[in-house]
Amino acid sequence: LPSKLPQVGTSIFSQMSQLAAEQQAINLSQGFPDFGCSPFLLEQLSNFSQLGLNQYAPMPGILPLRQQIAALIARCYQQRVCPEQQITVTSGATEALFCGIQALVQPGDEVIVFDPAYDSYAPAVQLAGGKTVHLVLTAPDFRVDWQQVADHINERTKLIIVNSPHNPSSQVFRHDDWLQLERLVCQHGLYCLSDEVYEHMVFDQRPQLSALCFAGLAARALVVSSFGKTFHVTGWKLGYCVAPAQLMAEFRKVHQYVTFSSFTPAQHAIAAMLQQHPEQVSGLAHFYQQKRDAFVDGLQGSRLQLLPAEGTYFQLADYSAISDIPDVEFCRWLTIEHKIAAIPLSVFYQTPPAQRLVRFCFAKEESTLQQAAGVLCQL
Amino acid sequence: LPSKLPQVGTSIFSQMSQLAAEQQAINLSQGFPDFGCSPFLLEQLSNFSQLGLNQYAPMPGILPLRQQIAALIARCYQQRVCPEQQITVTSGATEALFCGIQALVQPGDEVIVFDPAYDSYAPAVQLAGGKTVHLVLTAPDFRVDWQQVADHINERTKLIIVNSPHNPSSQVFRHDDWLQLERLVCQHGLYCLSDEVYEHMVFDQRPQLSALCFAGLAARALVVSSFGKTFHVTGWKLGYCVAPAQLMAEFRKVHQYVTFSSFTPAQHAIAAMLQQHPEQVSGLAHFYQQKRDAFVDGLQGSRLQLLPAEGTYFQLADYSAISDIPDVEFCRWLTIEHKIAAIPLSVFYQTPPAQRLVRFCFAKEESTLQQAAGVLCQL
Ligand SMILES: CSCCC(=O)C(=O)O
Ligand SMILES: CSCCC(=O)C(=O)O
Repeated sequence: LPSKLPQVGTSIFSQMSQLAAEQQAINLSQGFPDFGCSPFLLEQLSNFSQLGLNQYAPMPGILPLRQQIAALIARCYQQRVCPEQQITVTSGATEALFCGIQALVQPGDEVIVFDPAYDSYAPAVQLAGGKTVHLVLTAPDFRVDWQQVADHINERTKLIIVNSPHNPSSQVFRHDDWLQLERLVCQHGLYCLSDEVYEHMVFDQRPQLSALCFAGLAARALVVSSFGKTFHVTGWKLGYCVAPAQLMAEFRKVHQYVTFSSFTPAQHAIAAMLQQHPEQVSGLAHFYQQKRDAFVDGLQGSRLQLLPAEGTYFQLADYSAISDIPDVEFCRWLTIEHKIAAIPLSVFYQTPPAQRLVRFCFAKEESTLQQAAGVLCQL
Repeated sequence: LPSKLPQVGTSIFSQMSQLAAEQQAINLSQGFPDFGCSPFLLEQLSNFSQLGLNQYAPMPGILPLRQQIAALIARCYQQRVCPEQQITVTSGATEALFCGIQALVQPGDEVIVFDPAYDSYAPAVQLAGGKTVHLVLTAPDFRVDWQQVADHINERTKLIIVNSPHNPSSQVFRHDDWLQLERLVCQHGLYCLSDEVYEHMVFDQRPQLSALCFAGLAARALVVSSFGKTFHVTGWKLGYCVAPAQLMAEFRKVHQYVTFSSFTPAQHAIAAMLQQHPEQVSGLAHFYQQKRDAFVDGLQGSRLQLLPAEGTYFQLADYSAISDIPDVEFCRWLTIEHKIAAIPLSVFYQTPPAQRLVRFCFAKEESTLQQAAGVLCQL
C-alpha cells in the first residue's frame, strides 16, 4: 500500500509523553495541565448527560454554545460574529485546522507555513494535494519577515497559516504583524488560517489580538480556537472555527463528513461555563503568567538560557551551555537521566536551523514546576 | 472561492430533524434513540471526569478501551485482534470512515460504493481525489450482484465500501456475500472499508457476521463500528476502526492529524461498560427486534407496504398505495401535515431509481412507535 503520508511517524508529543511515563519523568513535553479543571465544569458535564442530552448535536454545534462563543468574541475583541452562520464547533482545534485546510486547499495550491510549526499543518495540506512552503523563523524572537513572505507569494499561493500566540516559540504577533498579514492577504486575494488556540494566554499586559480584529483579514480568515486549552481539559477535544458566512459554508461541508458533530454534553457544559464563569477566561493570562514567572524564577542560576515567553503555556530554553548534542538526543537524555521530559524544537521545522533549543510546558502545578526547576538547575 | 464539494448541501438528516423540530413532529428521520442510555454509563462518565481524566487520551485511544474492543470481537466473531496495533478509537464512526478513505484513496483511484449509501462516503472519496463508482441496489431485497461488481473492477479500482447491516435498507449480507466480496478483494488486490456500525442489530436469529470473520478479507479490510449506536449515545461520537497492523499504521497517520484523539472520560466509561455490562451488547439485537416488531405490528392494516428489516434500527416502507409524489416531497408532506418525520430513500442514491420508499427509525420508545403507527395507519 503506497502511503498517503510517507514521512509521518508517531508525533513527538506521543513519543515524549510515552517516554516520560516509562521513565516516570516529570512530563513537561506534550502541552496539557497536570491540575484539574473547574469543578463547576465537571458538575455541568454530569448534569447535562444525566438530563439525557446524549444524542447528536446539530452539525455546527449546539446554538447556546455558539452564542456564548459570539459573546466571548465580543468581550475579547469587540467584534460581532453571527452564531448561526459564522461559528462551528469542532472535535478539537485539530479537527478545525484539518477541515479549514481541506475546505480551502485544492491540488496544486501553495500554503505558506512558518516553521517552527505545529505538526498537523503540513500533513493536512499534503492530504488536500497542496504544497507547503516553509518559511523559517529563528531564535530568539522568531519574527516574521513580511517582505520574505511577499517574495514567496505567487499565483499558486492560496493560504497563509499563522499561529499567535505561537507554539512552540511563545511569541505573540505585534499589531504591525497583523497589519502586514492583512495587507498581503487582501492584496493577493489569499486566505488566512489563524490558529489562535492560546489566544487567552498573552502576558505582560500585551494586547490580546486576533485576526478577527482586522476587518480586511477577518473577511478572508478562518480563526481556530480551543476550549481544551482555555478550560484545562485538553482531553475533551472541543474547539471551534469562526469565519465569514461563505467560507464557513465551505468549512461545514467538510466538517459534516469528517466528524459531523462533537460530544454533546460537553458542548452544554462549556456553554454554561462561558456564561457563568467568564472570569475563568479573562483570568487565564494572569493564571499562566504566574506559572511562567514561577518557572522562570526557579531556573535562576541554571545554565539553561530562557527565551522571552510572551504567551502560550510554553517556555523555550537554549541548552548550549550544557551540551552540544542535537535537541532530540538532549530531550531523550534529559528524560532518561534526569527525569524531565521536554520537546526538542527541531521537530517543528522541515529543515531545522542550527539551534540548541527545547520547549518546556509550564501548565503544571507550582510544586511540579519547582521540582523540575530544581533538577534543571543542577545540569 | 471554488468549492471543494460543490454538490454538497445540508445533510438530509439535519434537514429533516430541523423540520421535525419546527413542526413538532415525531422524529423518525435521523437515526438516534429517544430513550436514555444505561445509568451505569452516565455514572462512569461522571466518575472518570471527576477522577481528573480530562487530558489528551493516547492518539489510538486508551488501552483499556482497545482491550475491551478486542474482547468484544473475540466474543462476537471468535477472532483475535491486537489492541496495540490493530484498533484505533475515533471521534465517531464518521471520523473512522473519513480517515480510512483518506488513508487508502490516492488521486485517480476508483472506489466502489453501493447505492443507497450513507452520505459521507462519496464526499470523503472526493476530498481524497478519488472517483466513486456507484452500483445500484434496489427494493425489495437490495442484493448485491457480485458479477456486476466484478465487471466494474479495473486497474484503477482501489477500494470497495460495504455496509452490513445496511443503512438505509436494513438488509444483512449473507455468508455468501462475504465470500464473494472476499474473493474479489483478494483476487484483484483491492481493499475493503466495512462499515459495521449496526453490527449488533441483526434480527431473526440470522448469524452476526463481520469482515473480520473472513481471513482473506480481514487481511485487506478496515472495519468501522460505533459505540454511539450500540450504547444509545449517538451524541458521544465515539467509534473505532479495526485493521491489520500495516493498514492501521496508515490509518493512524491520518487520524493523528484529523482529531488526534477523542473525549477521554467517555473512553473510560465505555471501557467500563463493555467490561461490566456485556449483556447490553449481546442483548441489543433482541432489544431492537422487539421495537421493530412493535412498529410493524402497529402498521398492520396501513397502506404502507413494509419491506423486510433484517437489521439496523431502520424500517423501509413503500408508500405508492398512498401517493405517487416523489419521496422528498412525501417526507415533507408527512412531517408538515401528519407530524411524522422520515427520510426519503432517493437521497441515498446518486441516480435514484423509480421507487416510492421512505425510511423510519424505530430506535424509539414503544409509546412513540405506537403513536406514529396510529397516524400512519390513517394515511
Ligand atoms: C495533540 S498533542 C499536542 C499538544 C500540543 O499542542 C503541544 O504539545 O504542542
Ligand atoms: C450523523 S446524522 C446521521 C444519522 C444516521 O446514521 C442516519 O440517520 O442514517
